[in-house]
Amino acid sequence: MTTGGFSCRHLAVVGLGLMGGSLALALRGVADTITGVDSDPATRDYALKRQIVDHVTDDLRAGVSEADVVILAAPVRAINAMLKLRIGSYMRSNTLLIDIGSTKQDICRAMSELPIGILAVGGHPMTGKESSGIEASDGDLYVGRPFVLCPTRRTTPAGRGRALAMVEALRAVPIEMEAERHDRVVAAISHLPYLLSAALVATVAREGQSDDAVWQLAAGGFRDMSRLAGSDVKMMGDILSTNTQAVATLLAMFRMQLAQLEAMLISHDDQHLADALLPTREARLKWADRYGNGMNNGKQS
Amino acid sequence: MTTGGFSCRHLAVVGLGLMGGSLALALRGVADTITGVDSDPATRDYALKRQIVDHVTDDLRAGVSEADVVILAAPVRAINAMLKLRIGSYMRSNTLLIDIGSTKQDICRAMSELPIGILAVGGHPMTGKESSGIEASDGDLYVGRPFVLCPTRRTTPAGRGRALAMVEALRAVPIEMEAERHDRVVAAISHLPYLLSAALVATVAREGQSDDAVWQLAAGGFRDMSRLAGSDVKMMGDILSTNTQAVATLLAMFRMQLAQLEAMLISHDDQHLADALLPTREARLKWADRYGNGMNNGKQS
Repeated sequence: MTTGGFSCRHLAVVGLGLMGGSLALALRGVADTITGVDSDPATRDYALKRQIVDHVTDDLRAGVSEADVVILAAPVRAINAMLKLRIGSYMRSNTLLIDIGSTKQDICRAMSELPIGILAVGGHPMTGKESSGIEASDGDLYVGRPFVLCPTRRTTPAGRGRALAMVEALRAVPIEMEAERHDRVVAAISHLPYLLSAALVATVAREGQSDDAVWQLAAGGFRDMSRLAGSDVKMMGDILSTNTQAVATLLAMFRMQLAQLEAMLISHDDQHLADALLPTREARLKWADRYGNGMNNGKQS
Repeated sequence: MTTGGFSCRHLAVVGLGLMGGSLALALRGVADTITGVDSDPATRDYALKRQIVDHVTDDLRAGVSEADVVILAAPVRAINAMLKLRIGSYMRSNTLLIDIGSTKQDICRAMSELPIGILAVGGHPMTGKESSGIEASDGDLYVGRPFVLCPTRRTTPAGRGRALAMVEALRAVPIEMEAERHDRVVAAISHLPYLLSAALVATVAREGQSDDAVWQLAAGGFRDMSRLAGSDVKMMGDILSTNTQAVATLLAMFRMQLAQLEAMLISHDDQHLADALLPTREARLKWADRYGNGMNNGKQS
């Protein structure tokens, strides 16, 4: 079937969580056939029963060998493991391979080692939900959201074109950039925020050991600042461990910013403190104005 | 008039912003008469036209001299200034005086110097909204939310009882504690989070100078973690400068927590990192479960 330039005879989605399930739903009318690959029997049953996919299997080889488009919708390390094992030899030549892992350098490096003929493109859709699992799948999850595409040594012009067409079929906004740049950007806007949230909750929990009122009085400010700390630890561990250098760089930059504010605070330099906080406030308001809309679905990529 | 034990003949609300306007609305059926004091003519007009209050004035003395209950609903420093100037001499003996400032030690100290006969109690309702100003007033703003009451040297048993009754009339949850304890708690759950949010936005803004993709790709995680940075700078400056010591203490505690996570990250000690992040996640989920409900109004006290 061809829709808006994206043609797909047989789509294989590897990993039927929230992201994979939502991809299958979004591409339901575009792909002639969809096969879902997942190791969990209950997840496979659900995907089949709800007609999110046409076929299911727990066998990676069987799942991808007939596909002309394969999407790896698993956690970063699982994607890396699949790429480094034998998935390259399971796929037919000219298959478009896209992943949706949250860090891109390791994955794109592994993709670059795939057999010539596999059209591999790194991907990272900037969307998500509080809830996870296939039950939370939503065919509109990608609509209007940025979908980063990172070239690999296996990205031919044709592969790139098909990847762009797929992102458009999802009604997402394709943004192309090198994997290294992507990883630095997400370190700033996603991985650093997660670590700050976790360290804040750890600090408050320490206070809470001696004074329960800390928990009782915590309100909306704490709610927002602590939400990321509730993220899946395994997933975040994978992400952080595959982006250590960029995260460490951003942490160092953050420390400097915080130390400056602290110095003004402690020395009661109220005017300079206000002068430092004002452009920060303006930057936040400007961002919310330009980009902050249309994302009320509690995204946490 | 008497309702649920709270009797008020003449209520004066000093400061007709979101908090003061909402207090007036919430106590509309409880107080026989409400006078609003505000320096802004448009605010006074609005409060009168919408019948949020019965009378308005910009004269503090005239506004409070006939009241038997006075609520100071202004920013922390404005409250401090009023207390240190002559408001004590404007009020009649036996008047209940409550403030709603976000830090309590300075204010309660100043309240303790008021003339004997003024029944002064420090207050801090843990509620709020994204939007500010009297136009955002909401008679249900305090319902079900914690309302901290801090004793002063001018809190008699009768004054304490009337303050508790007022909080109950607001259908808020009274929580009594010493001002020092209050300030330490809010340093942890409110002031530290604000500084982290501001320093995060400053860090991202620095990245954004060289790569606009930072702003473009920022999603829900950044949105939540940056929201507090958009707070009113003057208000936050007032709050921070009246709670320097507790905030500096919490900053030092936070730095230790962050440094521990960073050390594990950089040394690729994935297991210890996961071990450290897991209880943090559980603490956040437990808090959300116990207290996180009923506060979907974007509070930022």
